[in-house]
Amino acid sequence: MNNFKSRELKNASVAQLNVLCEELRSTIYQTVSVCGGHLSSNLGAVELTVALHRVFDFPKDKLIFDVGHQCYTHKLLSGRAEKFHTLRKEGGISGFPKREESVYDCYDTGHAGTALSAALGIGKARDLNGEDFHVIALIGDGSFQNGLIYEALNSLKILHTKVLIILNDNGMSISPTVGGAHEVLEELRQSGKPMEDVALFERFGLRYMGPVNGNCIEELLPALEQAKEAVREETVLLHVVTQKGRGYPFCENAPMQTHGVGPKSEQKEYSAALGEELSALAEKDEKIVAITAAMTDSLGLRPFFERFPERSFDVGICEEHASVLAASLGTQGLKPYYAIYSTFLQRAFDEIIHDVCGQDLPVTFCIDRAGATGADGETHQGVFDLSYLSFIPNLAIAIPKNIAEFRQMLRLSTEYAHPLAIRYPRAGEEGECSSVEIGKFEVLHSTMSDIVIMAAGERCITLAELVREELHKEGLDCNIVNARFLKPLDEALLNSRSEKIVVTLEDNAKIGGLGSAILDFYRNSGKIVLSFGYEDCFLPHGEVPSLMEKYGLGREKIVGEILKYARR
Amino acid sequence: MNNFKSRELKNASVAQLNVLCEELRSTIYQTVSVCGGHLSSNLGAVELTVALHRVFDFPKDKLIFDVGHQCYTHKLLSGRAEKFHTLRKEGGISGFPKREESVYDCYDTGHAGTALSAALGIGKARDLNGEDFHVIALIGDGSFQNGLIYEALNSLKILHTKVLIILNDNGMSISPTVGGAHEVLEELRQSGKPMEDVALFERFGLRYMGPVNGNCIEELLPALEQAKEAVREETVLLHVVTQKGRGYPFCENAPMQTHGVGPKSEQKEYSAALGEELSALAEKDEKIVAITAAMTDSLGLRPFFERFPERSFDVGICEEHASVLAASLGTQGLKPYYAIYSTFLQRAFDEIIHDVCGQDLPVTFCIDRAGATGADGETHQGVFDLSYLSFIPNLAIAIPKNIAEFRQMLRLSTEYAHPLAIRYPRAGEEGECSSVEIGKFEVLHSTMSDIVIMAAGERCITLAELVREELHKEGLDCNIVNARFLKPLDEALLNSRSEKIVVTLEDNAKIGGLGSAILDFYRNSGKIVLSFGYEDCFLPHGEVPSLMEKYGLGREKIVGEILKYARR
Repeated sequence: MNNFKSRELKNASVAQLNVLCEELRSTIYQTVSVCGGHLSSNLGAVELTVALHRVFDFPKDKLIFDVGHQCYTHKLLSGRAEKFHTLRKEGGISGFPKREESVYDCYDTGHAGTALSAALGIGKARDLNGEDFHVIALIGDGSFQNGLIYEALNSLKILHTKVLIILNDNGMSISPTVGGAHEVLEELRQSGKPMEDVALFERFGLRYMGPVNGNCIEELLPALEQAKEAVREETVLLHVVTQKGRGYPFCENAPMQTHGVGPKSEQKEYSAALGEELSALAEKDEKIVAITAAMTDSLGLRPFFERFPERSFDVGICEEHASVLAASLGTQGLKPYYAIYSTFLQRAFDEIIHDVCGQDLPVTFCIDRAGATGADGETHQGVFDLSYLSFIPNLAIAIPKNIAEFRQMLRLSTEYAHPLAIRYPRAGEEGECSSVEIGKFEVLHSTMSDIVIMAAGERCITLAELVREELHKEGLDCNIVNARFLKPLDEALLNSRSEKIVVTLEDNAKIGGLGSAILDFYRNSGKIVLSFGYEDCFLPHGEVPSLMEKYGLGREKIVGEILKYARR
Repeated sequence: MNNFKSRELKNASVAQLNVLCEELRSTIYQTVSVCGGHLSSNLGAVELTVALHRVFDFPKDKLIFDVGHQCYTHKLLSGRAEKFHTLRKEGGISGFPKREESVYDCYDTGHAGTALSAALGIGKARDLNGEDFHVIALIGDGSFQNGLIYEALNSLKILHTKVLIILNDNGMSISPTVGGAHEVLEELRQSGKPMEDVALFERFGLRYMGPVNGNCIEELLPALEQAKEAVREETVLLHVVTQKGRGYPFCENAPMQTHGVGPKSEQKEYSAALGEELSALAEKDEKIVAITAAMTDSLGLRPFFERFPERSFDVGICEEHASVLAASLGTQGLKPYYAIYSTFLQRAFDEIIHDVCGQDLPVTFCIDRAGATGADGETHQGVFDLSYLSFIPNLAIAIPKNIAEFRQMLRLSTEYAHPLAIRYPRAGEEGECSSVEIGKFEVLHSTMSDIVIMAAGERCITLAELVREELHKEGLDCNIVNARFLKPLDEALLNSRSEKIVVTLEDNAKIGGLGSAILDFYRNSGKIVLSFGYEDCFLPHGEVPSLMEKYGLGREKIVGEILKYARR
């Protein structure tokens, strides 16, 4: 049976529900094995989600997933079982909650910490609209470190609406959960319900219930019924303890490694180079420190963290705090490296401006998963960073053409006394690289031609080479420049180019990136500037080459545009 | 005596310190009366700062002010008394901590919630560098609602460094403090030290001490000495209760109104129009709700809050949460208006993308204090919003030319079912306005001319008129277009213009704003596009006209540039 029906679930016995859970678990495991996706987190939440669907009445009641790493069972139970094999595939179902996909998904998520705020807003709207339904926020313990959750907790007594918060506590975020909030949960988990810890939650104006074994249907059903009743009186936090990776020994034992599963890339990972290079540099320079926000492994920093534990800081899912921490360490002569995914750095935007660049501090942002990221979809594409960094004073922005150049940039960064951002995709080629200087482009092809392509980053350099081949077929030559710094631009080189047609390529939104900067430079110069980047829309999930092709970086389109001007 | 010396302070008796406090208080009061600035918050912190200077050894020890609304006494005691009369004046001393200004200022602040993260970073750096000094974070209770503080608290057990946190609790942020965190403080203040509330802090790995009367030198000195001793063992939170506005009955009784004091503008405030208009609209449309982050009065929303309390949400200094709250209310058919200063909206950048625009929800951002804001300096200029909003899909961006047009835009917004940002300065003219349509510019002057100025916002429309007058003197005419939507651009109008020279003016960073968008539109069209906005630097404190003149929007410079091209 692969067509899980909510209705049947309502009348099933506990034994039948347990069978259902095993079927769901197996479907998730098999599907993720093929499609990639979030495995351990979803395996841990099967019973909890089944119990929620049994006790509550979706879509009338609203279920909001924080982050959304646990929504697969919900998707399977809400009419999407037949399409579940298309998980994360282009045109298929998303790996995250999506309002456009189903009325059962009431709020889109992807970044951590939004669910409680969203639940309070939906609850308050319900009250104002005079409606009657339950609002449930399902939040992992990792998110409970995030400042946004705290801001929402602080708001409970202001908003006076009643929602059910389910704290799904598996003791892990993506890396093991760290910090003070975690220790409170740990103690509640171990020793039942010590008064002072419960008080911590209750101070904010909610009733604490639990802990409950979240992998046990028998325990969950009465606990949820009780919480459902209690939430009519006040906001309830039900503490549910689950096991990440539940049911598959391989996942249970390696929940970090199986949090996200993807088809292994045949390319080399930039993150591995970060770990290697930064460790080597730190060996020579004791001022180097590294900071991450709950992503040490995915960012490749495990070797650094193991070798230099006293200079390594994983602060949990706290992107803002990590940024201020980097800035302040930088005021004292240290050399902080803050590694983070492009999309998550959006959370620290104000701190990049206010703390790091406002004080012109020597912080290096290592921005991983920049550009289109593919299967995770809208909330995870790293296509805005060049746009949101380009106008920040004091910041240099580097875009390596391959892993060898990334290494060079890291080496260079140790001598650079100002804010620096280096942005790179997940994977690429090691390649080779000449020496790198801040603000200096590299000429890759230079012949007699009226066309020059200025491309940033590995994918776009590759694309430039392909465009060049196509142009050759049309009897045209073209030059290629590795535009490896968005800021500062290589003004000397730009001034020296004599080509009439300048083409820019970047793996970023077209608005506000490299194309804008070069167009601005050549303003009123008489040159034709053609810029290519992503269109002004949110990129859905899909394969990166296909996203590039469809949303603004299609080779034929680029060649066609160039030919239009070249043949005038 | 106006030359307060730290050294004398070390040997003074308590009676002498009390005299000193009165002198400091009087100096602050008199200076702020002339220069403007933050009055009540600084008056409340005089004794506390004097006691800190007595007990600690600055600048060897490091004092970090959260926000910085309480740093005047510190400035007076650290060699800046003689220059204090230049407070907030161009070239004079800043109203906020500034590393460039004094070695006594170790970390720049301006936005809320950064001080604890910064203290932990500086403390950790001290430990790594093998140094020995005290690190003190002075944090107002308003900031304790902010998510960033929570993220830093969560980090105490990760970072293992020892700092002294002084919670300066006056029961107010800018508006009275609200929310769950506040109630905990309130109870501690009222009833001494109930165990479960202290536990709330201690759970994070710090020792709670206090509460102490923060306006009483006799109480403060031993409490600080004790805390100084205790912090050698562990991080300490010393709870100090002060009275905002202390010493001046007018300020004590109206701390909100005297939080920030400035020379009263002769112009009308856009915020007043927001309050009036939104209240009138809400009268007819019960779906309208308003959200602020601790700035209800400054944003003009008091009338709305009084008239529609059930539809009004002040969530405290929680800009991110406010944004998600707006998004989620919007999913349920409500029409949320989130009013906020331009510089503070930077904190909600990720949520604008991830929650509001990612889901294409009908949230209107009312962005006050946009453009150069003047005397508060670098951390408060609103000159980045056009740049950081321009590339976000689904968002319309409106820039009214006067208050009448702002009203029209607000009326229009009630019918607009997508995300909308309206950005405006503090004050301007009521003026008049024709009807407004989303994405439609307005032609203000159209004659036979080869030059058109496209200006956005009141200041730049005014500047355009002045430039036009200057051009007249040179025998040239020019047209003026009110470019009131950065997004969507009025493509029909742009296509219809026949002028050869297009000049853009905007009260925003030049990179990534209106100038970039119009340059992009006219790419390869043969038109000359000249764009003027702020240069790529942080604007210091100073008068707005002077900042415009010096940093990129000088009338003569603009006229000169136009003439260069017009006479070719």
